[in-house]
Amino acid sequence: MRLLRVGPVGAERPAVLDGDGVLRDLSGVIPDVDPAFLAGGGLAAIPAGLPVLDPDGLRIGPPVARIGKIVCIGLNYHDHAAEIGAAAPGEPVVFMKAADTVAGPYDDVLIPRGSAKTDWEVELAVVISRSAAYLESAERAADHIAGYAVAHDVSERAFQLERGGQWDKGKNCATFNPLGPWLVTADDVPDPQNLGLRLRVNGEARQTGSTKDMIFGVYEIVRYLSQFMTLHPGDVINTGTPAGVALGQPEPKPYLRPGDVVELEIDGLGRQRQTFRAA
Amino acid sequence: MRLLRVGPVGAERPAVLDGDGVLRDLSGVIPDVDPAFLAGGGLAAIPAGLPVLDPDGLRIGPPVARIGKIVCIGLNYHDHAAEIGAAAPGEPVVFMKAADTVAGPYDDVLIPRGSAKTDWEVELAVVISRSAAYLESAERAADHIAGYAVAHDVSERAFQLERGGQWDKGKNCATFNPLGPWLVTADDVPDPQNLGLRLRVNGEARQTGSTKDMIFGVYEIVRYLSQFMTLHPGDVINTGTPAGVALGQPEPKPYLRPGDVVELEIDGLGRQRQTFRAA
Repeated sequence: MRLLRVGPVGAERPAVLDGDGVLRDLSGVIPDVDPAFLAGGGLAAIPAGLPVLDPDGLRIGPPVARIGKIVCIGLNYHDHAAEIGAAAPGEPVVFMKAADTVAGPYDDVLIPRGSAKTDWEVELAVVISRSAAYLESAERAADHIAGYAVAHDVSERAFQLERGGQWDKGKNCATFNPLGPWLVTADDVPDPQNLGLRLRVNGEARQTGSTKDMIFGVYEIVRYLSQFMTLHPGDVINTGTPAGVALGQPEPKPYLRPGDVVELEIDGLGRQRQTFRAA
Repeated sequence: MRLLRVGPVGAERPAVLDGDGVLRDLSGVIPDVDPAFLAGGGLAAIPAGLPVLDPDGLRIGPPVARIGKIVCIGLNYHDHAAEIGAAAPGEPVVFMKAADTVAGPYDDVLIPRGSAKTDWEVELAVVISRSAAYLESAERAADHIAGYAVAHDVSERAFQLERGGQWDKGKNCATFNPLGPWLVTADDVPDPQNLGLRLRVNGEARQTGSTKDMIFGVYEIVRYLSQFMTLHPGDVINTGTPAGVALGQPEPKPYLRPGDVVELEIDGLGRQRQTFRAA
C-alpha cells in the first residue's frame, strides 16, 4: 500500500494511491499516517468508495506524521566508500538528523548561507513501526518495519568534514531531508535488498545504484542499531547512499548551486524532485 | 520561575515551585510547560491560590513537554579537553541526542548491554523558546532562550569513540539524558556564565566546575548553531561538561556499574540523583 500525506505544510492529511494510481482521501478512515497504526495491522485493504483527490496543485508532504529521530548510516555502499577514499567500515557508522530537517519530496531545498559544498545523496529510508531494543537477530527486524520511502540525505560537505569532525553539523540544515512521496508498506516491498536507486542533477545521471550493494543490509542495520538505542514507531533510518555524489567527483566538484534541480527515484518507491534555492 | 512537570511517565502535568519552595499545580493555568508559551511571555507571576501538591512519592519528569532535538557541544571546557588529551577546539564541536533519550532527574539510568564504559557528564542545558536561524550576533541569542536546566549527558565511551568515530552511537542509549528537575526561566538566571556545576558518584566528588570556564559561552553557542540549523521552540542544547569524567581518570577508569548513584547539581538549577541499573 502506498500511503502519503497531502496538503499545506503542517496541515497535511492522509491519502492513499490506489492500484490504478488514483489518489484517494484517507482522512475519514485514519487520523494520519502513523507507523504505530501500521504496527497494529494498518488497513487490510483500501476501503471502497474513498473520495478521489485532484493531484493538480496539491502539495505532497512527508509521508509519515510525528517522525521521531532520523538515524543515518554512513559509508554503507562499497562503491561510495571507495569513491571518497574511505575503507569499507567493519560495522555501521552512525550519525543523526533531527526530524525538523524533513521536507516534502517536491519542496524547495535551501542551500545554507556560507555553503559552497552542498551535495546530494539518494537513500532508502526505513520507517519503524514497533519499538525495537536488543533484537537478537536480523530476522527479527522485519517485525519492526512499517515500510520504506525515498530519502534525500542532503549534506554540506565543508560543514560535515572540515568543521570539527562530527558529521551532524553538515547534515541538519533546514530542509535537508526530503522524504517521500509515499510510504510503501513492507508487505509491498518483497526484497528491500534488490531496489535500484537513481539520482539526476539538471537531467544528468549522477547516481545509479542498487540496494544489493549495501555493506550492511536493512535488517542487519535495524538489529545493529537496536543494540545501541531504542528504535520507536515513527523513527526513520537513512540507510546510506551509493556512489556518484559530488564529493566523489574530480575537481572542480559539481556541488549544488541555486536553481539546480535534483530528481531521485527508487524502484517501487516513487520519485522526488527538488529545486535548490539560496537560504 | 522554576517550572516543572510531575506525574507518571508520559502523563506529567505542569507545576511550579514557588518562592517558599512549595510545589503548586499549574495544570489549571497552562496546558503544559511549553517553551513556545514561554516565548509568548509565559506567566508574569505565579497566580495566587494554586493548589499545593504533596511531593512525597510524586515523580518529577523532564521539565519540558515536546522536546524537539538535543544539540550537544563537545569539548567545551578547557579543563575537560585537557583531561582527555584533546586540543581546545577552534569552533564548537556538535553532535546530537534524540529527544527519546530524555528521562526525569530521579529516574533510573540504564547501563546498556555490552557496556563497560558508561560515563557521567554534568551539563548546563539551554532550552529554546523562539525559532532561531542565522542570528547576526551573540547578543541576539538571549531573545531565543526560554531558560536553563541541569542535564546529564550520559555517554558510553567505547560506543562513542571506538566504534566508527561518530559520537552519536555512544550518546543515544535509552535514558541517557536525565533533564531537570526544573526549567528556570531566563529572567531568573542573571549570568549563565557564572554557575557552579558539581557531580558526585556514590558520594565522592568527581566534577567541580563553573560555566565561567566554557570555551564558547551560551549566547555564542546559540548564535553559532543558528548558522547551521534552525533552532525551534523546545529544542535543548547541552553545552558541554567540565573536567572530572571517568574517561579522564588514570586506569583503571571508574566507569559506572549497576547500583552506582550519581548526583548532579548546578547553582540555582537544582539537583538530580540517579541510580544506574543494568538494561
